[in-house]
Amino acid sequence: MRMYDIILKKRNGESLSKEEISYFVREYTEGSIPDYQASALLMAIYFQKMNKEETVYLTEAMMKSGEIINLSSINGIKVDKHSTGGVGDKTTIALGPIVAACGVPVAKMSGRGLGHTGGTIDKLEAIPGFSVEMSQATFINNVNRIKLAVAGQTGNLVPADKNLYALRDVTATVDNISLIASSIMSKKLASGADAILLDVKTGDGAFMKEIDESFLLAKEMVDIGNNMNKDTIAVVTDMNQPLGYAIGNSLEVKEAIRLLKGEGPEDLKALCHFLGAYMLLLANKVNTESEGIQMVQQVIESGKAFEMLIKFIEQQGGDTAYVEDLSSLPQAEEILILKSEKKGYIHKIQADTVGLSALILGAGRDTKDSDIDLSVGIVLNKKVGDYVETDDILAYIHCNDIKKGEVSINQLREAYTIEENPLNVRPLIFGVVDKNGIRKLY
Amino acid sequence: MRMYDIILKKRNGESLSKEEISYFVREYTEGSIPDYQASALLMAIYFQKMNKEETVYLTEAMMKSGEIINLSSINGIKVDKHSTGGVGDKTTIALGPIVAACGVPVAKMSGRGLGHTGGTIDKLEAIPGFSVEMSQATFINNVNRIKLAVAGQTGNLVPADKNLYALRDVTATVDNISLIASSIMSKKLASGADAILLDVKTGDGAFMKEIDESFLLAKEMVDIGNNMNKDTIAVVTDMNQPLGYAIGNSLEVKEAIRLLKGEGPEDLKALCHFLGAYMLLLANKVNTESEGIQMVQQVIESGKAFEMLIKFIEQQGGDTAYVEDLSSLPQAEEILILKSEKKGYIHKIQADTVGLSALILGAGRDTKDSDIDLSVGIVLNKKVGDYVETDDILAYIHCNDIKKGEVSINQLREAYTIEENPLNVRPLIFGVVDKNGIRKLY
Repeated sequence: MRMYDIILKKRNGESLSKEEISYFVREYTEGSIPDYQASALLMAIYFQKMNKEETVYLTEAMMKSGEIINLSSINGIKVDKHSTGGVGDKTTIALGPIVAACGVPVAKMSGRGLGHTGGTIDKLEAIPGFSVEMSQATFINNVNRIKLAVAGQTGNLVPADKNLYALRDVTATVDNISLIASSIMSKKLASGADAILLDVKTGDGAFMKEIDESFLLAKEMVDIGNNMNKDTIAVVTDMNQPLGYAIGNSLEVKEAIRLLKGEGPEDLKALCHFLGAYMLLLANKVNTESEGIQMVQQVIESGKAFEMLIKFIEQQGGDTAYVEDLSSLPQAEEILILKSEKKGYIHKIQADTVGLSALILGAGRDTKDSDIDLSVGIVLNKKVGDYVETDDILAYIHCNDIKKGEVSINQLREAYTIEENPLNVRPLIFGVVDKNGIRKLY
Repeated sequence: MRMYDIILKKRNGESLSKEEISYFVREYTEGSIPDYQASALLMAIYFQKMNKEETVYLTEAMMKSGEIINLSSINGIKVDKHSTGGVGDKTTIALGPIVAACGVPVAKMSGRGLGHTGGTIDKLEAIPGFSVEMSQATFINNVNRIKLAVAGQTGNLVPADKNLYALRDVTATVDNISLIASSIMSKKLASGADAILLDVKTGDGAFMKEIDESFLLAKEMVDIGNNMNKDTIAVVTDMNQPLGYAIGNSLEVKEAIRLLKGEGPEDLKALCHFLGAYMLLLANKVNTESEGIQMVQQVIESGKAFEMLIKFIEQQGGDTAYVEDLSSLPQAEEILILKSEKKGYIHKIQADTVGLSALILGAGRDTKDSDIDLSVGIVLNKKVGDYVETDDILAYIHCNDIKKGEVSINQLREAYTIEENPLNVRPLIFGVVDKNGIRKLY
């Protein structure tokens, strides 16, 4: 088999066989196929696409390129939830305790990642003492004991994706549905969960800007998962404005914890209830969406979800006093205020621009080795659809460096579109994709 | 400027600016842009194409990537002739003396190249003593003295093409008209001729298999040349079967020399007359195609073309006795015979298969450093359209190694299609492309 022939075949619009795709992934990971041939193939895939079978073959080959985690010694159906990423998305922090409180084991492996804020792990580390470093045995024991543990991703999970993603990133070959789907799903499948819930974000602040495209990506991933015998459901949700009010590590942790106390922004609540319900469905804990939502609301109202959070923080070495008193969590020194320059209805809060404003403050990583500032970030005071008068506060900018704060505020101002006329706000949840197909809710 | 943005722009179907193309060629040649980004761009160009302006910018940037030869101290209009390559194409060897005998200076720089036989230089080296190693001053003096010199390509001509071609070759991005045209034309333009005649081959044995595509490539190159103020004409000619009878280095030299004596295959004669006429037209030596053909025929009949060959061989150190007595040129030890297995009309002699048979014998280079055997090759006994009885001789295989000869003959047999019904033979010359457009002759 020759890489040249594989490139030529795809370039000419033919489908690649399982053997050809495995050969490519294996030899590229081993370094036998040079980057310049891999990038030519990726660009050919961008133009000629991959069909369903090819995408499954690619996912499987990538999954097998490294370690595959075995969680079979954890009792029960392990459901993993993955978000394609957005601004202000702190649902994982809230959903872990919620779902565990319902009796479903949550064994979450998480990365740190690059972005406008840190990843789930970075956010949780805002709680002093909290650690995600543990052996696999401890991880499994912890889940079996209290139903919930979060560990930093260790080991050599899907090295093929690490290499390919880095290459796609510099060769303008990121945005292809098959490549995106196989990259996400190979990692989920290698992480050992029994079932997978995908939150596919759609809108300006998401990877996928268009709703139709987002459903296609969701369908692609659901098909891959089910093809590989993992029960998989995807929910397509809005990312045209940030989720909730808080963007930033410590700020997001606070908002997630408030949610567990029954407080917090309506959109974040609604999404957590919905995603939680589908995690319970996948775990065979409930039979319908509404039954699931009810169970989620119950564990919040009864305080069981918050109790689970305390147990979880304790188990991983965190100081629970900080959870009980949120004002003790890392706080920025200065709070700047962004005021509205005119009156009217907020038509838009461009999510990616808000993300960039948070990154400017130091909330995220520019490169793999950057430090992040856990205390800084943005707290929105108004959301899309709200009416504001001139000089009403739009947002608070939490910063430790006034210069950065000023650059950030100027950036943030650009995110807003305010018009005289009222508007119909986009729905939060666009639909659900499962093995029976697409169910649109708008 | 960032290479990423250039790839993205082309991937999205936009046109690249002169600055972007120059940046890419310059930085890639200097090694600042990695191969994997270059190959991604090449694949994007394959799918999105380049327009006329982009192709001219690319050609110019490549031309300027290295040395540009100055032939201005040669008197008269220097016409360079280039063939896109085919099997049995020995026209350059015959055309040099013909055109020079008409009083037009021929200053030919030639490479060795990879292929089923050697290049023009390899072929001429079948004549003992003949050398193409000379200083640029000697080269120019030689042309000024007798109107004809052939030198090996020295110096750093179009390094961008060397690198890009090598990359295209392993990433399935060779067959794009803009990339082919700019590769050929950048080298022609850097070689310092005043006018360029292109012989664009079409058919199974050529780079371009389809006639329409060949005309497109011809038009693209003519437009580039004229855009860069070099009078350029292209002729589209057949390469569905080998040109003439002989394939192999010494064998082709003999056939070319016989042509200068007024002998030889009709197709080779007709093509040399036609190409010669257009070289004379480009040199302003004649005013019409037919006037040109007449002048070519005259210098052959009068013996002036052959006299020029003798002077030329002498001037470059060759032993002219070998030219006077062709049987003294390198000859293979064995001649095998390929006989027809049935009777009928020859419908096809697949040119690339014949080329491969010659390569198997050792007539060409597999890699840059391979030695070539000047004596081996194939001599056809019949051409397309001829009628053969069972056991009639189709071809002679000149070999020095019976084993290789047998492999070659088995390969060669595959080249033939013989059918009961007679056929209309394809024309030799399909048309001419000049600044006024395409003129089809079939």
